[in-house]
Amino acid sequence: MHEILKSSLANYISLTGEQWTFVLRHFKPKVTKRNEILLEKEKTGQYIYFVVKGCLRIFLVNDDGQESTRMLIFEGTFGTAFPSFVLRQPSAAAIQSIEASNLLQISYQDFQTLLEKIPGWEKMYRIILEKAYIESILRIESLISMDSKERYNILMEENPKLIQRLPGKIIADYLGISQETLSRLKSKEVRKSGKFEC
Amino acid sequence: MHEILKSSLANYISLTGEQWTFVLRHFKPKVTKRNEILLEKEKTGQYIYFVVKGCLRIFLVNDDGQESTRMLIFEGTFGTAFPSFVLRQPSAAAIQSIEASNLLQISYQDFQTLLEKIPGWEKMYRIILEKAYIESILRIESLISMDSKERYNILMEENPKLIQRLPGKIIADYLGISQETLSRLKSKEVRKSGKFEC
Repeated sequence: MHEILKSSLANYISLTGEQWTFVLRHFKPKVTKRNEILLEKEKTGQYIYFVVKGCLRIFLVNDDGQESTRMLIFEGTFGTAFPSFVLRQPSAAAIQSIEASNLLQISYQDFQTLLEKIPGWEKMYRIILEKAYIESILRIESLISMDSKERYNILMEENPKLIQRLPGKIIADYLGISQETLSRLKSKEVRKSGKFEC
Repeated sequence: MHEILKSSLANYISLTGEQWTFVLRHFKPKVTKRNEILLEKEKTGQYIYFVVKGCLRIFLVNDDGQESTRMLIFEGTFGTAFPSFVLRQPSAAAIQSIEASNLLQISYQDFQTLLEKIPGWEKMYRIILEKAYIESILRIESLISMDSKERYNILMEENPKLIQRLPGKIIADYLGISQETLSRLKSKEVRKSGKFEC
């Protein structure tokens, strides 16, 4: 599991053998079941997760029990309930592994240790943050300026497997559309691709 | 103008007199008129702006000429068309000073110089990025999980002056609601505060 993390980090940072050993031993393996909750709402986020296999969902639940998916985190990427993790405050969002997943987790304290001790860790974290912030800006843009069809089309272009892989409820929720609208868009897509043509 | 920038940066970083001189001379004053465009859509963002006085708006325009406000940047804070500035790509968004403004701008190249030459600049930038990313996450949360009334109430709590200060069109657009809905929410607010009670 650590080799996948190492090759992902090596895109951003060059370290000596000794430094790699030091870094990687701060990431602890965690195996989760499908639908397991990793962080409950109102608890403080203790870990950043690196997804080796599987998928995490960060989501909100309102007082009526209605869920809204804030973010999906796939293989080879990092995720956490970021505001809670950074500000050390109770989280508005919960984290769930929506598939049985293999994760590597690093605690807040250990992450601070790497920021202090590993030259280049600060820069690497900054570059990953820039990317994450850009993705969130694009998400905001899609929410404020696109209709459901445009949002669906962009997801189809960028991550077509996601639509087959995840339950319709979660996709619809992530796109901010109803399940009925998603079904209609999906069936149009299937007709367009000719699979149902006579 | 530079003193306001210095006192804002001094919350994050300690520098020698010589370092402050070096840092501040990379920020060039820019005075803008109301509604002046600082960056056109499809051009690459060249500057980060620090708002000394006034307000900037970062917004999208679709093919029908309809505008969507992605972000508002007020006194004492930094802003740019971030994806374009970081990735050195044409910007999907434009930047406009919606009030006559006093700005300090730093170019992409000069910003890289500070990252290289000033100890602690990387850390400071990372901490400002964390805050900006958290704000964008909260914006996403409000867009996916709140109705127009909840979004309006949060804005009233966090930034009540904004609602008096900016045109209704921009507030409505920022909240992702129609101007009619905004007027209805505003008039309810006025009635609640008793200003129109007989």
